[in-house]
Amino acid sequence: MYIFKKLSKSACLFLSFFFIMQSLQAQTASWIWYPGDFDIWMSNVMQNRRTERGSFFPPFWKMDSHYALVDFHKEVTVPAEEEVLVKVEGQYNLKIDGKAIPASPGTFRVPAGKHRISLKVYNQAHVPAVFIRGKTIHSDTSWLATFEDKEWIDASGKTSDKSGTTFVPAGSWGMTDMAVLPSAYRLPVKPVEAVKVEKLAGGFIADFGRETFGFVRLKGLRGSGLITLYYGESKEEALSKEFCETLDILDINNPEKRDSVLSLSKAFRFVQVEHGLGIQLDGIGMDYEFAPVNNRGSFRCNDAGINKIWDIARYTFELNTREFFIDGIKRDRWVWSGDAYQSYLMNYYAFFDSPTVVRTLWAQRGKDPVTAHINTIMDYSFYWFLGIYDYYNYTGDKNFVKAIYPRMKTLMEFTNKRRNSEGLLEWMPGDWVFIDWAEGLSKEGAVSFEQVLFCRSLETMALCADLAEDTAAALAYRTQASALREKIFSLYWDEKKQALVHSRIKGKPAGNVTRYANMFGIFFDYFNAPQKQQVKKSVLLNNDVKKITTPYMRFYELEALCALGEQTLVTKEIKDYWGGMLKLGATSFWEEYNPDKSGAGHLAMYGRPFGKSLCHAWGASPLYLLGKYYLGVKPLSPGYATYLVEPSRGGLEWIEGTVPTPKGDVQVYASSREIRVRAARGEGLLRFTSKSKPGRDGASARKTGNGQYELALQPGKSYTVSLRN
Amino acid sequence: MYIFKKLSKSACLFLSFFFIMQSLQAQTASWIWYPGDFDIWMSNVMQNRRTERGSFFPPFWKMDSHYALVDFHKEVTVPAEEEVLVKVEGQYNLKIDGKAIPASPGTFRVPAGKHRISLKVYNQAHVPAVFIRGKTIHSDTSWLATFEDKEWIDASGKTSDKSGTTFVPAGSWGMTDMAVLPSAYRLPVKPVEAVKVEKLAGGFIADFGRETFGFVRLKGLRGSGLITLYYGESKEEALSKEFCETLDILDINNPEKRDSVLSLSKAFRFVQVEHGLGIQLDGIGMDYEFAPVNNRGSFRCNDAGINKIWDIARYTFELNTREFFIDGIKRDRWVWSGDAYQSYLMNYYAFFDSPTVVRTLWAQRGKDPVTAHINTIMDYSFYWFLGIYDYYNYTGDKNFVKAIYPRMKTLMEFTNKRRNSEGLLEWMPGDWVFIDWAEGLSKEGAVSFEQVLFCRSLETMALCADLAEDTAAALAYRTQASALREKIFSLYWDEKKQALVHSRIKGKPAGNVTRYANMFGIFFDYFNAPQKQQVKKSVLLNNDVKKITTPYMRFYELEALCALGEQTLVTKEIKDYWGGMLKLGATSFWEEYNPDKSGAGHLAMYGRPFGKSLCHAWGASPLYLLGKYYLGVKPLSPGYATYLVEPSRGGLEWIEGTVPTPKGDVQVYASSREIRVRAARGEGLLRFTSKSKPGRDGASARKTGNGQYELALQPGKSYTVSLRN
Repeated sequence: MYIFKKLSKSACLFLSFFFIMQSLQAQTASWIWYPGDFDIWMSNVMQNRRTERGSFFPPFWKMDSHYALVDFHKEVTVPAEEEVLVKVEGQYNLKIDGKAIPASPGTFRVPAGKHRISLKVYNQAHVPAVFIRGKTIHSDTSWLATFEDKEWIDASGKTSDKSGTTFVPAGSWGMTDMAVLPSAYRLPVKPVEAVKVEKLAGGFIADFGRETFGFVRLKGLRGSGLITLYYGESKEEALSKEFCETLDILDINNPEKRDSVLSLSKAFRFVQVEHGLGIQLDGIGMDYEFAPVNNRGSFRCNDAGINKIWDIARYTFELNTREFFIDGIKRDRWVWSGDAYQSYLMNYYAFFDSPTVVRTLWAQRGKDPVTAHINTIMDYSFYWFLGIYDYYNYTGDKNFVKAIYPRMKTLMEFTNKRRNSEGLLEWMPGDWVFIDWAEGLSKEGAVSFEQVLFCRSLETMALCADLAEDTAAALAYRTQASALREKIFSLYWDEKKQALVHSRIKGKPAGNVTRYANMFGIFFDYFNAPQKQQVKKSVLLNNDVKKITTPYMRFYELEALCALGEQTLVTKEIKDYWGGMLKLGATSFWEEYNPDKSGAGHLAMYGRPFGKSLCHAWGASPLYLLGKYYLGVKPLSPGYATYLVEPSRGGLEWIEGTVPTPKGDVQVYASSREIRVRAARGEGLLRFTSKSKPGRDGASARKTGNGQYELALQPGKSYTVSLRN
Repeated sequence: MYIFKKLSKSACLFLSFFFIMQSLQAQTASWIWYPGDFDIWMSNVMQNRRTERGSFFPPFWKMDSHYALVDFHKEVTVPAEEEVLVKVEGQYNLKIDGKAIPASPGTFRVPAGKHRISLKVYNQAHVPAVFIRGKTIHSDTSWLATFEDKEWIDASGKTSDKSGTTFVPAGSWGMTDMAVLPSAYRLPVKPVEAVKVEKLAGGFIADFGRETFGFVRLKGLRGSGLITLYYGESKEEALSKEFCETLDILDINNPEKRDSVLSLSKAFRFVQVEHGLGIQLDGIGMDYEFAPVNNRGSFRCNDAGINKIWDIARYTFELNTREFFIDGIKRDRWVWSGDAYQSYLMNYYAFFDSPTVVRTLWAQRGKDPVTAHINTIMDYSFYWFLGIYDYYNYTGDKNFVKAIYPRMKTLMEFTNKRRNSEGLLEWMPGDWVFIDWAEGLSKEGAVSFEQVLFCRSLETMALCADLAEDTAAALAYRTQASALREKIFSLYWDEKKQALVHSRIKGKPAGNVTRYANMFGIFFDYFNAPQKQQVKKSVLLNNDVKKITTPYMRFYELEALCALGEQTLVTKEIKDYWGGMLKLGATSFWEEYNPDKSGAGHLAMYGRPFGKSLCHAWGASPLYLLGKYYLGVKPLSPGYATYLVEPSRGGLEWIEGTVPTPKGDVQVYASSREIRVRAARGEGLLRFTSKSKPGRDGASARKTGNGQYELALQPGKSYTVSLRN
């Protein structure tokens, strides 16, 4: 477990070498494009792969497109003449110092000295993209791009200056293979075999042993006629020709035996294959498709049940981490902002894969003009802002914030225009106020939950305006945010109920209390410490307040309880709720779980017998809770420049694990007697309790209160604290 | 000439039949798409066909794209079950009453009764387009489209209502052939032969007799090796391997003799073909590419020179009328708003081809957000508004105005945001203030010309807001327009100079006078009658005011003179200027003509020996002047519901011709002794002068002043007025 225990000097040298290689890597040529454009294009491709019983099933929101005509340039200084290779996806011209090179050459020579290299690329079908590789000249994110170069030619034939043209750093996914065009981008696959095949009349049913995703491979297929594949996340679904959610019908004419791989990926554990007598096949397998992320986070404890839950959560999250973070692999296979927001948080404790966060944020936002909220849902616009807030907090990546800031601004302009006369947001035609899947949940009037999210979004705008050096806007957002925060308390806080009420209808507070605004108020730190304790009693632990039944909102409810130090309660909840699904044979976590249901009743949703997704990203929330609130690791300043470690075992004997950061891993072990911690980089702060003065490295800890200690953690050093409890 | 003279009863019956067929035609199925999208897509294709000496040469402004995901629907009531054929460009699903039909079928059955047919189409590369043909169900512009259908599915699986979704009538170019996908759209071609071929060392030069446009056909080509084609609008250009503006290099390997047609169209009269000994060919021809418009307008007079000018102007205009109205066929082959605006006006007196106007307006405007003026030029945004004003005036097409109105509004929002502290428009970073190609022309400060165009644009907004029933906006635009009009006079009118001064710099009027604002003030009717006469003297006929040298601005200068009744002067100008080009052997009219130049000097521009376009749409302005101000026909209310005929011979003995309208043609003959006129439909008003009471049909004319008469014209009736002059 503790790799760092074994770290020798040579390993350290190796690590240094690794970082040097990484910075060299930054000078490697890669495909570049207008920032965000490939993300938007690829998300169109990905989201339109969904089918429902053989019919194309696209999203119902606006799909944006890349800029079809883009100009790329860079000013280079070349020590000696060099030959440069160029590959472009699209029709293009290439200029050196404003002079076009005839035709569209595959190589060109750049003389020694300072030059401006520019390419202008047109591509309607795919994203205009450029790959340049010379001795010193490489396409990378130091190139600038614009969709409107304004290269005016005046009457004398001179090109005028570019005053007013906006150039932005090019975007890239780090694709370094010149031979593979960006439009050919595919996630990797690996072969997986069925674990069991049962004969049926007219075919068979194959079981892949657990939930999976990819392309079915029909092995040694020969003959002619129809083959129908009925996919099932459950055996019941695959056996239900009438109601299974996805199927494929193939018209085969293979005179010679060969493997046939389906062209569209599907989510399934079981596949029923039905075919006529004219068809023969040797067997069935699949090409498992996956995102090449790293399993950097880990968690283990003395409870095997919790360990199993963590493993299945990780696998559930792996399946839903694709080109982008999606909601579920069977359904909807779309990039929903509310779902993705939770994935971002889990990601920081599992893969710490920043590129997938960035891609998902670009893809969701699309292009201007804003004609509706993200995914058409009001709350989902806010989660998008919050996603950027957290992304900056966890990664410290200012460049992304600067790049996306203009689109943040226009989304906030859209939102601000929709305020009512009290300055609050309520439903307007074209909006979907979602909050949660919960029967009888009122969306009427100005719902407190939406205002809380709106307020944090404004705070995000202020933060990002600072980073983008938009000073006037930063002040305006900050002022608006603090006014709204006051207003939330003056308009929604009910002294008697010691809670924020659910909504405000026609200028009057509705009397009922729901959990939503109250639990967000806790981990957003909108409540002060006594209020938090009050709200815990009056709302979170109050059975008269309507219970939350979806894993989607359980995520935040359990987070609020953790933030209040109720880890022991949360441990029980995790074991009951997630453990409950495992007892029913789940091999990935579900979109929804209601212990009161039984048998195939667990598979139904949306009025369809197999409508429920049995592999939903939001089902994986223990990854986040156990990392952030048990191992207790979180950044204190952007990108983990400083960070906190505050382990909380939640009733478990011992816990241990790894939390990834942009500066290497933080490793934590905690039992009642000992805490061990080590981080590769950053300035850490270990916070713990001990009845009396702790031992070993804990001896130098600072006492901050009654049994409360803090120990500063230096990078690259291992700490062992002996506790007296 | 006068068809109507020969109209018999049977011809009238035939005409009625024709109109009935036309209205049936409206029920014919055609390809449909989101309105404006094919126009934008096709203009990207067309404008990116430009090359310069073999290099791709795209525009420098933003290219927008179609919506990649579009939902189409129609509520139909079917008397009996019918089978419907469906063809779609893109990936799609098809629903009847919200229920998907499995897969993407080529035919489907609609049961008797009322049903909602909907299709959702995804296409990134091409415009999502639909063709539907059943017994009663047809795809046409009565279908509705949206890019954001908001088909929310709630927790119970129900689709929610579409409140807030904007549905708009589908767009169409009237393509009725199901087998030809919209993306395969091509203008028609016809073969044209070279009129003369001269041998040269290593090849030959072919002369096609006059300026032309299309695809060179190398006949009976055989062998292998390189062929180079050097195109020339002049012989000098085709012979200049070093400086000709366009060329093609082909690498041939044809073991068997066959015709080779070039894949990119070019503008030329001459082609030099150069090839090695390994190549043989039988000859050269071309596929002439043209827009299938009708030559509805005509003009003839006693002066053969003017008739020749009209014919060459018509041919020049034919060449530049393509998928859209472009500036010039060699260069730029782009859709420039200032150029297109003049083409619209010429079109109303030549082809009256409304679809090409509509396409060009959609293409120029593109999509939101507005990031720059149209073609990045401030004046060009205004010409775009003016183009809509005139389009409505000439055609009465409210539906188009309603469809484009939202994009008019956002362009005006962009413009209004760029006003200075005085509410005037002046240069800001990213703007190009063009006005005219004229050396030493100041663009500093708030130029009066821009404010005049801005004011007429605001008047256009008010008019169109009324049509779109946007009452509050109509009032706001009207108020802003009238305030600006007053401001123009209070800030720019110079009592001493009896003219609008050129500009206002840092809050103070610049002293100099230019022609631009003053001539527009005349035909915009911003000046009162005495002012007009003053301005004629103080500006238009004042040689101290810098002369206009481009045909672009000559268009408006001559229009202003015509509007002041100076047709006789204009006749002389036309004969000198356009006749001057003809004397130099022009077979189409040029981008610019300066009589002081000589020889190959006429071919140079932009610092390049063959930079000048010898076939520029704006060179065809006599079409407009002779139709509107000589035949004197123009609408008095939108779409020629009422119209004016006020012939003015400009010193010519007789003139005659046809002016097309949406309600048939207006035919006019005028000499000193007689006016004859006939219009198919609409309520006309003939205005003429006669020293004493006119005869024949003129006997019933109303005397309106000293020698001034007006005669009401009924549709379908021929009038002959004998003049006493």
